[in-house]
Amino acid sequence: MIALSLHRKVSVIGAGMTRFHHKLHLEKQGRELFTEAALEAAESVDNGFTLKEADALYLGYFSSDMFEGQAHISALMADWIGINPKPAVRVEGACASSGMAVNMGVLAIASGLYDVVVVGGVEKMRTLDTSKVTDTLAMAADVSYEVAMGFTFPGLYAAIASAYFNKYGSTWEQLANISIKNHENGALNKKAHYQETIMDIAKKLGERKQMSFSDEMEFLNSALNPMVASPLRLFDCCPISDGAAAVILAADDVAKKYTDTPVKIVGIGQASDTMALHDREDITALMASRVASRNAYDMAGIKAKDVSVACVHDCFTIAEIVATEDLGFFPKGQGGKAAMEGRTGLDGDVAVNADGGLKAKGHPVGATGAAMVYDIFKQLRGEAGDHQVADAEVGIAHNVGAAGATVTMQVYRR
Amino acid sequence: MIALSLHRKVSVIGAGMTRFHHKLHLEKQGRELFTEAALEAAESVDNGFTLKEADALYLGYFSSDMFEGQAHISALMADWIGINPKPAVRVEGACASSGMAVNMGVLAIASGLYDVVVVGGVEKMRTLDTSKVTDTLAMAADVSYEVAMGFTFPGLYAAIASAYFNKYGSTWEQLANISIKNHENGALNKKAHYQETIMDIAKKLGERKQMSFSDEMEFLNSALNPMVASPLRLFDCCPISDGAAAVILAADDVAKKYTDTPVKIVGIGQASDTMALHDREDITALMASRVASRNAYDMAGIKAKDVSVACVHDCFTIAEIVATEDLGFFPKGQGGKAAMEGRTGLDGDVAVNADGGLKAKGHPVGATGAAMVYDIFKQLRGEAGDHQVADAEVGIAHNVGAAGATVTMQVYRR
Repeated sequence: MIALSLHRKVSVIGAGMTRFHHKLHLEKQGRELFTEAALEAAESVDNGFTLKEADALYLGYFSSDMFEGQAHISALMADWIGINPKPAVRVEGACASSGMAVNMGVLAIASGLYDVVVVGGVEKMRTLDTSKVTDTLAMAADVSYEVAMGFTFPGLYAAIASAYFNKYGSTWEQLANISIKNHENGALNKKAHYQETIMDIAKKLGERKQMSFSDEMEFLNSALNPMVASPLRLFDCCPISDGAAAVILAADDVAKKYTDTPVKIVGIGQASDTMALHDREDITALMASRVASRNAYDMAGIKAKDVSVACVHDCFTIAEIVATEDLGFFPKGQGGKAAMEGRTGLDGDVAVNADGGLKAKGHPVGATGAAMVYDIFKQLRGEAGDHQVADAEVGIAHNVGAAGATVTMQVYRR
Repeated sequence: MIALSLHRKVSVIGAGMTRFHHKLHLEKQGRELFTEAALEAAESVDNGFTLKEADALYLGYFSSDMFEGQAHISALMADWIGINPKPAVRVEGACASSGMAVNMGVLAIASGLYDVVVVGGVEKMRTLDTSKVTDTLAMAADVSYEVAMGFTFPGLYAAIASAYFNKYGSTWEQLANISIKNHENGALNKKAHYQETIMDIAKKLGERKQMSFSDEMEFLNSALNPMVASPLRLFDCCPISDGAAAVILAADDVAKKYTDTPVKIVGIGQASDTMALHDREDITALMASRVASRNAYDMAGIKAKDVSVACVHDCFTIAEIVATEDLGFFPKGQGGKAAMEGRTGLDGDVAVNADGGLKAKGHPVGATGAAMVYDIFKQLRGEAGDHQVADAEVGIAHNVGAAGATVTMQVYRR
């Protein structure tokens, strides 16, 4: 039975991340990126913390094998962050790898074995060119059935978008609007890959091509935003970024030694769904998002309406719309419209992807789940800077692996 | 702080494994192999169990990416064993991947979140030819420093053997003896890759070459046992096998519903060491084995001398000798001699690798840690068949990742 409470409560006491970027980290290895994030996380602990105080490391990395030709990255990273002989575990769950690592860290502390653990993730993707990255990511789908038929993730999410449009009569503008919103947020986030609004980009690209655009929609509907997999265009897809994020978790009874303002992890959840889309009854919702979020809400004793700030997994714009419905923020079929009405903006009913989301912040896949926690930690402590959401009380991190075959969730409270 | 007790005690209630083999599974995918092992594990539960009763899955697989071009194997396997929407996590720690998965399962139950979990591992290695397998396994060493200089694992363990010989004056015969013993045990184990003694093999290969051998040592010292990396010869190295193993863990308070004879997990441990051998002060011992085993013994409240049956990680013969010392069975430098004296045989002070060890049972790397638990479970219930150790009371599983950068341990009691 999956229980509604853990034997011991856990809090976040520190968090760090590198900037996510496609060029800045070309000379660095994954080991260097994660070490940078882990050191920043340690530095962020109010009353001081050195990584050697950690009892264990849980690290998400989707495919160090393919991207760096390096496996056993857990032990390598324990060595690099200087915590030997403490145990280190790599967890892999496609793009939800570090969401899993966070949950594993929570369980490991709740078990009573450890008091303080470092969790996080990294992905060094820019070792390969774009088509090879796409092929590598496609290994997270069912290779024997889906990939063998020509699917990669833009195609799988395009199928979701097409089915969704067909079922709910939604339009392309709703997708474009997600991209516009997330780039606006990303422009306010110093860790984001793209710190530019869509209008900034439209002006820049337009000038090069001697074109001008009166608004974002016009640009996004132009040839400068080419179709990737209909109906998804280039700006419906998150970029390919390198980066790392690290979070320090402590048992509640130990956390107070390190800070007066820990961020409490009040609920966790994880769920699986069929690997292949074709095995699902309905592809306009992710069943695993529904199960994982309900488990996490129930453990936290909250309802969806209580959430003030949400990092949701927007690898493609359609994914954010579907997520805001699956997570219970809006009824099915209403997510796109709600976002168009500004209800997911920084001052909306629930601020969704205040940090720019995967779309603008970037998506070094193994780092994403932990990077969400980084932003929630900052938001709930009022330290998020220009993209701070006023009076954020309850935050969630929703991390999706592949097309929803894995979903992890946590609920945080200040 | 790493604690000496968990919030909840955990037992093994079932275990299954495929035969490990280099040819039998050529037509099967990893997903099929693990499903076979998981179904056998469920079948083995005394009072009946269906996999759907499990709350989660923790799966070790070293490199599904390289061997099968398939990542996100956790979700795929949850799908295949039919436990959706239950959570599934892949853990990777080189050849200790499923040892880690077992420990993660213990912590997850101890946290209070789950009652029953499936843990295990799989590796489908025979998709690649031998040299590619060796290259893929080498990704578990430090690729930038060790592999770049030409090291693969036979070379790294040969370095350990050379240093050990130099320090302790041990001889080649001590290595050969480990191989002879483990093949004798493997010949008694219906799940083993090689169910042949070295003498069986000497006769078979000798006849083909029109040679005869009066004893095993003569054969092992012949050209039919070629040097791989001095001083390690072919029969000092474990074979390349495909296979899977699965174990069902339950909270002690829940286990009694399923069986009257659970096998209790009374201690766990895990430790890390520097990734590269050249960073260690002494390569004639694995520091991580010492730390992980002491943590596990302390939690179990036992001493090394209390262990009746031990599965230790003998990827190369030298590794077994070093392990029996690091685990505290014999003083440093005495492991090889002790084995020559029969002290690690089925009726010795401690039965080491009664199941044939990695040497004869085979080593589908991600499956090995769980396959050790399979044998300990059978041994402690008196169900090990022809290789049963009389009156086995306390068992250990010692699983090593790479050249000791990761070590996992569990102590079991009937």
